[in-house]
Amino acid sequence: MIKLRLALEYDGARFDGWARQPVRPTVEGAVRDALDSVFPHWDDLAVAGRTDAGVHASGQGVSVSVEGGPPAEHAAEALNRRLPPDIAFRSSTEAVSEFHARFSAQARAYRYRVLNSRSRSALERRVLWHPRALDVRQLQSAAATIVGPHDFRAFTPTETEHSVFQRSVLAASWAGEAGGLLTFSIVADGFLRHMVRTLVGTMLEQEPAQILELLAGAPRERAGRTVLPDGLCLVGVAYTAHEVDELRRRNCGG
Amino acid sequence: MIKLRLALEYDGARFDGWARQPVRPTVEGAVRDALDSVFPHWDDLAVAGRTDAGVHASGQGVSVSVEGGPPAEHAAEALNRRLPPDIAFRSSTEAVSEFHARFSAQARAYRYRVLNSRSRSALERRVLWHPRALDVRQLQSAAATIVGPHDFRAFTPTETEHSVFQRSVLAASWAGEAGGLLTFSIVADGFLRHMVRTLVGTMLEQEPAQILELLAGAPRERAGRTVLPDGLCLVGVAYTAHEVDELRRRNCGG
Repeated sequence: MIKLRLALEYDGARFDGWARQPVRPTVEGAVRDALDSVFPHWDDLAVAGRTDAGVHASGQGVSVSVEGGPPAEHAAEALNRRLPPDIAFRSSTEAVSEFHARFSAQARAYRYRVLNSRSRSALERRVLWHPRALDVRQLQSAAATIVGPHDFRAFTPTETEHSVFQRSVLAASWAGEAGGLLTFSIVADGFLRHMVRTLVGTMLEQEPAQILELLAGAPRERAGRTVLPDGLCLVGVAYTAHEVDELRRRNCGG
Repeated sequence: MIKLRLALEYDGARFDGWARQPVRPTVEGAVRDALDSVFPHWDDLAVAGRTDAGVHASGQGVSVSVEGGPPAEHAAEALNRRLPPDIAFRSSTEAVSEFHARFSAQARAYRYRVLNSRSRSALERRVLWHPRALDVRQLQSAAATIVGPHDFRAFTPTETEHSVFQRSVLAASWAGEAGGLLTFSIVADGFLRHMVRTLVGTMLEQEPAQILELLAGAPRERAGRTVLPDGLCLVGVAYTAHEVDELRRRNCGG
């Protein structure tokens, strides 16, 4: 068997998240069906981030062991022919046998987009529509407080599968575009469940100084609401120090 | 009655074009239903470009006379509450009574996006997927030949509603982005039916010198295929000389 490393893109709107379950459609379910059609044998399917229902990905990291089927560099296109239009592999290469999309990951990057505009948009649908005017400078200084190693337990549900709540945020920033589109970009070694969505909800509601206090292990109820999944996208995963640098540069400027 | 000028956005995928017809869903049909719910009386609905099935708009120009209902500056939001998620007004203002979205228009801007990448995309769906590598420099010089007043009859169906085939292209250019996304932008005083899609199809197939020959009134069969509507978007309409300048600057740089 050979180990494949793939980059996966999906529009999460139609899916009940990554993780397979018996009834509702999931991204994992569709990917498993495509693997069944393309490879005589496969095993050990893993992803860098098990995204929640409605969350999108433009650079999800995937690994899988395969036997037979097309060569590694053609696996993405072969799988795409068996996937629905809202799921697509963007690249595939052969990796070392120890490579694991989740356990080998050194950093992950997410983006959360807010449409800060009086009118909603028919074309920008993977956003949170927020008609009330936002102060971009205040958002930027809130993002700056998040950078560093912190205890993020305030930003994940109290009933949790996590046992360690410290994560290191390598970069975090807000950028504005034409038409009121605001993008929050964050790169960290790892993320707690709902962490990005609760950070965004809190930045939309609280002052930077209040957020700083929450980062020392405050309880969940002191943080803001968990915003809708529609605006969230897993944009990339880094597996080497060089890729970590590239992920920071591409996603948070500088 | 007062005259409204509105900017309209829609994802054309689900619609059989702008123009209302009895059976299949159209953008005009949905807009008329929303006008019926919001205004006691309305009349003279007009658009700058009657887009074909599957074509999108981010800046369609709309005019309508209304009586009663919300004030002009709140009309967009009031109508949006009655429109499906893939149609949205982005702005509304009061215009002079003579204003007409189609007959007052001095220029229109379209974009056509091509995804020039081995793998298709799950997120960039409003594109033409073209896996074979394209030469962006050749496309750019092809675009340059199109600028100016020309006889565009080679780029519209032979059975036609048009009687005059001359149009003035004010700007035309190709730009490349990360990930193989190529965008053709064109601003002209007006467009023949299928003109942008047939120009793009021809640029993908023919040399710039051949295209120059077609611009002197060659027959339809010498031009290339009409590419799919998915990549096409009406991005803006200009009603004054100042707006024409802005439309050129925003859409074709320089």
